[in-house]
Amino acid sequence: MNKSYKVVGIGNAIVDVLAKCSDEFLSAKGIEKGIMQLIDTSRANEIYTAMNAGVEISGGSAANTIAGIASVGIKTAFIGKVKDDQLGRIFAHDIRAQGADFDTPMVSIDSVDETGRSMILVSPDGERSMSTYLGVANQLGVSDIDPKLMADTDWLYLEGYLFDRPESQAAFIRAVELCNEAGGQSSISLSDPFCVDRHRDAFHDLIANHINMLFCNEHEVLAMYGGENLQDSIINGAKYVDTLVCTAGANGAYIANKGKIIHVPSNPVNLVDATGAGDLFAAGFLAGLSQGKSLEICGKMGNISAGEVISSMGARPQTSLQDLFEINKL
Amino acid sequence: MNKSYKVVGIGNAIVDVLAKCSDEFLSAKGIEKGIMQLIDTSRANEIYTAMNAGVEISGGSAANTIAGIASVGIKTAFIGKVKDDQLGRIFAHDIRAQGADFDTPMVSIDSVDETGRSMILVSPDGERSMSTYLGVANQLGVSDIDPKLMADTDWLYLEGYLFDRPESQAAFIRAVELCNEAGGQSSISLSDPFCVDRHRDAFHDLIANHINMLFCNEHEVLAMYGGENLQDSIINGAKYVDTLVCTAGANGAYIANKGKIIHVPSNPVNLVDATGAGDLFAAGFLAGLSQGKSLEICGKMGNISAGEVISSMGARPQTSLQDLFEINKL
Repeated sequence: MNKSYKVVGIGNAIVDVLAKCSDEFLSAKGIEKGIMQLIDTSRANEIYTAMNAGVEISGGSAANTIAGIASVGIKTAFIGKVKDDQLGRIFAHDIRAQGADFDTPMVSIDSVDETGRSMILVSPDGERSMSTYLGVANQLGVSDIDPKLMADTDWLYLEGYLFDRPESQAAFIRAVELCNEAGGQSSISLSDPFCVDRHRDAFHDLIANHINMLFCNEHEVLAMYGGENLQDSIINGAKYVDTLVCTAGANGAYIANKGKIIHVPSNPVNLVDATGAGDLFAAGFLAGLSQGKSLEICGKMGNISAGEVISSMGARPQTSLQDLFEINKL
Repeated sequence: MNKSYKVVGIGNAIVDVLAKCSDEFLSAKGIEKGIMQLIDTSRANEIYTAMNAGVEISGGSAANTIAGIASVGIKTAFIGKVKDDQLGRIFAHDIRAQGADFDTPMVSIDSVDETGRSMILVSPDGERSMSTYLGVANQLGVSDIDPKLMADTDWLYLEGYLFDRPESQAAFIRAVELCNEAGGQSSISLSDPFCVDRHRDAFHDLIANHINMLFCNEHEVLAMYGGENLQDSIINGAKYVDTLVCTAGANGAYIANKGKIIHVPSNPVNLVDATGAGDLFAAGFLAGLSQGKSLEICGKMGNISAGEVISSMGARPQTSLQDLFEINKL
């Protein structure tokens, strides 16, 4: 039976606060470069007060992916928690404006916590360092997983960051079960090597038992599956899923499927802000998959989408991905 | 006696919501291109629901000017009303992060109105069309004018948009009187030709009696002072002030002072988004004035600042204006 949705994503609903900073600022504030750190309200205030004037853009890892796929005109939905505050309304507007359905009930304005935000500091080398206050994104639970939606999608796409909370892990497992029972397939992104370190066993159980396609980068796959080198690590991980897709920065991506590894090189891009590279790679890849393309073409579509998003500030595409796919005859 | 501040600005405290749009969208929504329209809450909701995903950046005409001057390291302050809500805190953070003092008391969180915002739709030609919900920016009154601050600045810079409310006009007149009594000088930007049409007599009274320097563009000076052509109009207007500074888009700027008109041509720039061009011209000009430069050099600094801000999205500079001034040996 045909499903209504091609991809449904579940993740942290986050508004990004982007600003440029110096390497000295990162050191002075004890912010580790290139990774995501969870922070509490007082640390959020400390960093925000000290940082440069920012730009607010809707973000969230899986939300960026879903917005990217939706922008190509593919039917998608997103599940994530915002509060009914100004930032929550901005988040909801933006993902709907990109074409995705977003119907997760908002947390009441009376809640003490606010809509989640991530202070993304972009250093002169284009690398981004994220300090994330989750706020109400934290409140996602099993009750937010709509069984009808889970049964009505070809692919589920899960954001690894949600593993930081047991209630969200439970929501993930419920979502995957509902999707798989109805004949859909499930994918997950490992999100961050430190997130992998924090939850290796829980990730392993979910992936080995329920996941068809695993998205990761070179640091994450090594953190998750060890191995002497990247190829080793990909071969290890590929035992547990149908397809393992590993991005490798300027080297493009490696796709492991049915005992083979396909390397899809990327074209050189002027790196302005690395935010959203992995998210938009997954968007391009899943867009290709939804259009019935080969894994290699999906990889090329992923590379092109990632290249577009890192050539400007922010994690949502500034130009039409569909136009880029057409220019590149994909 | 030396004053603590070089420039203090008074204006609408606004957060911009920027998005690209087609010309068809502007027509369909009845939005007139290139100007600012004041809108109420229901019209704001209508436009926001229909428009593309946006980017939130602190804005406000005089606030952009003050942030631009402050970013050069010149001592400035801004007076304007925000609510103690998320957007209000973003506005306050950003203008302080640029280096300006901002101590106007925030409107309580219990207020029905929110921090003001302007939906800025950027069409493919780079022109911007603004639909502004003023919110609590509207609540600026005489009590927000700190007499000590007014007496402690070389220049006052007023935003014409504030003429849309009698209470703000009263605040302006009080501010100008306090500044002038203490030996400071006052400047004003006409903001918009339709704003001029709405308040020509009140503008004229203020300018003729209190203003030393008038900032405007070609449309505004014609709306205000009539005349056969731009030169006529500038000559008419220049009778009422010491200096009249008129920007003319790609033609740069005209500066009328002591019976002469100096033309300062601008360098060609790749127009991405016209938002903030006039605001940042004034920032560069006033920065030059604060550093004791000649009027012609001030005009060049204005052109360079305007050129920088229109070559990217948003109305706050993305690169250091001081670096640009130094590269151009100004």
